[in-house]
Amino acid sequence: MNKRKTSGTYRSRCPVSIALDLFGDAWSLLIIRDLMFYQRRTFGEFLRAQGIASNILAQRLAQLEQAGIISKHPEPSDARKFIYSLTAKGIDLAPVLVEIIVWADRHEQTDAQPAMVRQMRSHRRAFIARTRRTWAREQQPARRRSRSA
Amino acid sequence: MNKRKTSGTYRSRCPVSIALDLFGDAWSLLIIRDLMFYQRRTFGEFLRAQGIASNILAQRLAQLEQAGIISKHPEPSDARKFIYSLTAKGIDLAPVLVEIIVWADRHEQTDAQPAMVRQMRSHRRAFIARTRRTWAREQQPARRRSRSA
Repeated sequence: MNKRKTSGTYRSRCPVSIALDLFGDAWSLLIIRDLMFYQRRTFGEFLRAQGIASNILAQRLAQLEQAGIISKHPEPSDARKFIYSLTAKGIDLAPVLVEIIVWADRHEQTDAQPAMVRQMRSHRRAFIARTRRTWAREQQPARRRSRSA
Repeated sequence: MNKRKTSGTYRSRCPVSIALDLFGDAWSLLIIRDLMFYQRRTFGEFLRAQGIASNILAQRLAQLEQAGIISKHPEPSDARKFIYSLTAKGIDLAPVLVEIIVWADRHEQTDAQPAMVRQMRSHRRAFIARTRRTWAREQQPARRRSRSA
């Protein structure tokens, strides 16, 4: 696997520290969550879902793209707009998200769907494999669209 | 399990959002990392390890204690000082830390020990179980010390 530094300066080379530099910001992880579990794909969808200021959202999207975690391509129906998707590096964050959700559900009152959390806890590997399959399926129409566009 | 809201206001009840409110700050997760993997226990040890300003460190320790993730008790030899440790809720973050480290090692150049990352990746459950056992063993002398103090 090709490993490269995706951003200029890290405060250390500790893996936890580097990971936090890349996606540790709260808004960034919520964007990743929206892409991974809620099929949100556009600037407008993130904006409406999160109640985030549009300049902050634009900055976080640019950072995640720079970190190689998300990518964007023009929307087929309107080339001025973009569709965002997770890269392979981004979908590799699925186990991190799953463990965060399982932890929060165990210790806090959340609105997580009980059936989903049970799947995550008791059938963790199957749940992550299914998330990856959904992601892979979604990549295909996007590629077809950009070829035909 | 007794679930209660540990902090006053969350921006939503989404489990990812709540988790980030509780430990999503970069310094907070580095403190948890130091407690979990590096056996750092005191204010001075965190300060030296992280290059963090002491007022920020004090604030993050207070937040983590308020969130029920860490606890403190007086140092036996000097009751003006404190020894910090992870609570059960804090050690439950081990799978989150493990997945973050595995992800960063896969995609970035880090200083993670290759043998440790191999253990995390190939023997994930055993690694987490061992981390929990180490934590449980450490709790015992602390309890003995505070009984005899």
